[in-house]
Amino acid sequence: VSIPSDHIVKNFDQELEHLRHTLAVMGGLAEAQLRSAVQALREQDGERASKVLAADAEVDELELEAEKSAVRLLALRQPMAIDLREIVAALKIASELERMGDYAANVGKRAIAISQMGVVRPVLALPRMADAVADAIHRTVDAYERRDDAAALEVWRRDEEVDEMYTALFRELLTYMMEDPRSITASTHQLFIAKNIERIGDHATNIAEVVHYLVTGERIGGRPKADRSSFQVMVSPPPRPGGAG
Amino acid sequence: VSIPSDHIVKNFDQELEHLRHTLAVMGGLAEAQLRSAVQALREQDGERASKVLAADAEVDELELEAEKSAVRLLALRQPMAIDLREIVAALKIASELERMGDYAANVGKRAIAISQMGVVRPVLALPRMADAVADAIHRTVDAYERRDDAAALEVWRRDEEVDEMYTALFRELLTYMMEDPRSITASTHQLFIAKNIERIGDHATNIAEVVHYLVTGERIGGRPKADRSSFQVMVSPPPRPGGAG
Repeated sequence: VSIPSDHIVKNFDQELEHLRHTLAVMGGLAEAQLRSAVQALREQDGERASKVLAADAEVDELELEAEKSAVRLLALRQPMAIDLREIVAALKIASELERMGDYAANVGKRAIAISQMGVVRPVLALPRMADAVADAIHRTVDAYERRDDAAALEVWRRDEEVDEMYTALFRELLTYMMEDPRSITASTHQLFIAKNIERIGDHATNIAEVVHYLVTGERIGGRPKADRSSFQVMVSPPPRPGGAG
Repeated sequence: VSIPSDHIVKNFDQELEHLRHTLAVMGGLAEAQLRSAVQALREQDGERASKVLAADAEVDELELEAEKSAVRLLALRQPMAIDLREIVAALKIASELERMGDYAANVGKRAIAISQMGVVRPVLALPRMADAVADAIHRTVDAYERRDDAAALEVWRRDEEVDEMYTALFRELLTYMMEDPRSITASTHQLFIAKNIERIGDHATNIAEVVHYLVTGERIGGRPKADRSSFQVMVSPPPRPGGAG
């Protein structure tokens, strides 16, 4: 990553280019962090997982740099309406990418814990879901760079699939826990990992919304939410005499 | 809430006042949402929980209004450095408050699920933690309004207590699950509720950082992070022959 943080450009267009480039680098890092965290989880590789945590500091630094760049842009000249929209959009995207990095780091932390647990029953749907979300990051950052509204909307619509995968995963993991209480600690970590990945998907969706706003000047109405696990009452039906639970 | 969304003020200072007021209203709503969600949880009151979900739309609306107001401010005149800092800070705070609303809504969703479960063993530490976090929202928004750096730093430092409460809760809930697999669904919801509340606390901390930056022009180094639950390997030590889990 080659962005010197005290790199001050005097020209408005150059500074804007610098800001866009910073976001592109952040997007690449967030995607790589997620992929690496899930690989570390799959291979129970604590060392690889630790590196994901280290990369998070870099994403945080870049968010600060994006923010400084936006402030410099605002100070450089009275921006026109379209430039303003561009700068506000960049600030929002930087914030979304920074949160993705946080969630990926949390996946990394939990991958470290799981790496110390002996053989843990893998949840096959987890890497699949992570792949879908990493692709969403890639496509949404790409849509931002190319100002491609259609591509952004595609990411936005497909978030529903991720939410469905998450809901299925949630059920699967709860079933494991009920079948074998010894798996509870590992399964709980995997539940939170799945939740973190689902949230990263939400943030990709948020970026897609920003791109749509940037290109069209309009907001997308509604949310493509399909995470029904929060409403989940019962998974398998073990009898609950006296209503314990 | 009396903020007409097409309320356009022509004067810079009035618009700034409008923006600050919008944030104060958002802060009050986020705090009320959290308190209400946890009360609904405690009383297994599904109806009250539903109202929390409805309030989230209001917080989302207000974030949009804050954003529009910030853009109007930037367009009204070439802001000076201090005004710029003010506007960027307001945008960040609005975004933090909006996320708090999302997490509170998720607590509400899960409270609805739990309200349908018959008698659920209460986790006493959960309302206590929620109280601490609701207070943090209150104090941090107050610190913003009064530009009180000392009060902001106090919230920032005390986030560690919340993280410790969360780590203890995490352990307690995992123990319940191991003792009684029938409690797994309810306990999992409570785990996510605790996590959501802990995240709301993080966002209050983020606002405290913004206030510090606003007042002093400097960033706080490091993070008061003490959530060790992500690193948790084993809670109670049931034997795990063959490394299952």
